[in-house]
Amino acid sequence: MKLYFAGTSPYVRKVVVMAMETGLDKKIEHVPTSVAPTQPNKELAKDNPLMKLPTLVTDDGMRLYDSYVICDYLDSLHKGEKLIPAAGPARWDVLRIHTLASGLTDAGILCRYEGMIREEGKRSEPWIQGQLAKINQGLDELENEVEHLDGRLTLAQIATACSLGWLEFRKPAGDIRKGRPKLMAWYDAFMKRPSMQATIPKG
Amino acid sequence: MKLYFAGTSPYVRKVVVMAMETGLDKKIEHVPTSVAPTQPNKELAKDNPLMKLPTLVTDDGMRLYDSYVICDYLDSLHKGEKLIPAAGPARWDVLRIHTLASGLTDAGILCRYEGMIREEGKRSEPWIQGQLAKINQGLDELENEVEHLDGRLTLAQIATACSLGWLEFRKPAGDIRKGRPKLMAWYDAFMKRPSMQATIPKG
Repeated sequence: MKLYFAGTSPYVRKVVVMAMETGLDKKIEHVPTSVAPTQPNKELAKDNPLMKLPTLVTDDGMRLYDSYVICDYLDSLHKGEKLIPAAGPARWDVLRIHTLASGLTDAGILCRYEGMIREEGKRSEPWIQGQLAKINQGLDELENEVEHLDGRLTLAQIATACSLGWLEFRKPAGDIRKGRPKLMAWYDAFMKRPSMQATIPKG
Repeated sequence: MKLYFAGTSPYVRKVVVMAMETGLDKKIEHVPTSVAPTQPNKELAKDNPLMKLPTLVTDDGMRLYDSYVICDYLDSLHKGEKLIPAAGPARWDVLRIHTLASGLTDAGILCRYEGMIREEGKRSEPWIQGQLAKINQGLDELENEVEHLDGRLTLAQIATACSLGWLEFRKPAGDIRKGRPKLMAWYDAFMKRPSMQATIPKG
């Protein structure tokens, strides 16, 4: 399989951690890929017209995106216990927290684009404050329900850890640790997994 | 069940069509809700810290988001043929096209916010062009693989129709019909379904 890859993308990291945790990483070739909303990547567009990372091309030529779809696909390929529960309250809890975690980085990336991609003078403070409110409320929610991240490994845990890692790496919302001791203790423990250590973003 | 609702949201429409097509709509109460990235909605934030629509609260108090998660949940509640295939190539095709369709409106909404939410003088033409490229390439992809939208009803069809409907309603990318006769013929036929007729956006 071929994975359009960037080592600093939290969505790519989630897929790579998922692959490592399910023993599939050796079957996936990483294709280093650069994306930015103002610089169309025509190579990537051949397999994903939205030009977003990650995008997976399977050995039989299926093109898969976004990161959730790729994780769902990878979860179907291994014989171990599933990281996305098949049914029941556990499934909805994992899927909701996955969305929440993704929403944190979606908002963080919009903040980052605001400062990085846009021309100076075209940056909107109300827009940034709106995105920061989503991040801060989302983190507070995770702090309040951190027990939902306990138990056997799930995609919710991987997604949360990759989002927190990215928020600490790029710091769009500053210091996220203050007032969230339980969440960050959970994160620090989760970070000890070899899959997380092997995928720490650099740059 | 309680659904935070706005009649002009393509993501809300997808959930409502899904509910109608699976016979669940009578069990869902609509709570009219206004959201904008620069105007935090504190009521919605109690159930979804990301403050996005749709958000569903189930009768047993589960909070579910985003629209995909809600559709997956609704699909688990009915006894008919599933709109999200359980496994195999059909599943990955439906999930990929669902992502593609959502990506069209994600990009369209960013274009719309650029003109509507932002202060004048803070609008970036390169940003808008980057989002329009995603929309146009995505629509061309759907035109080229329109046969993937044939066959029995799936979430891919509902998502695509709701996205096309929104792009025609708000017109962030202008006239989307030109050069896409097969896709738009498919859409016009799909629009005859009572579920689509009952959910045409107004405003």
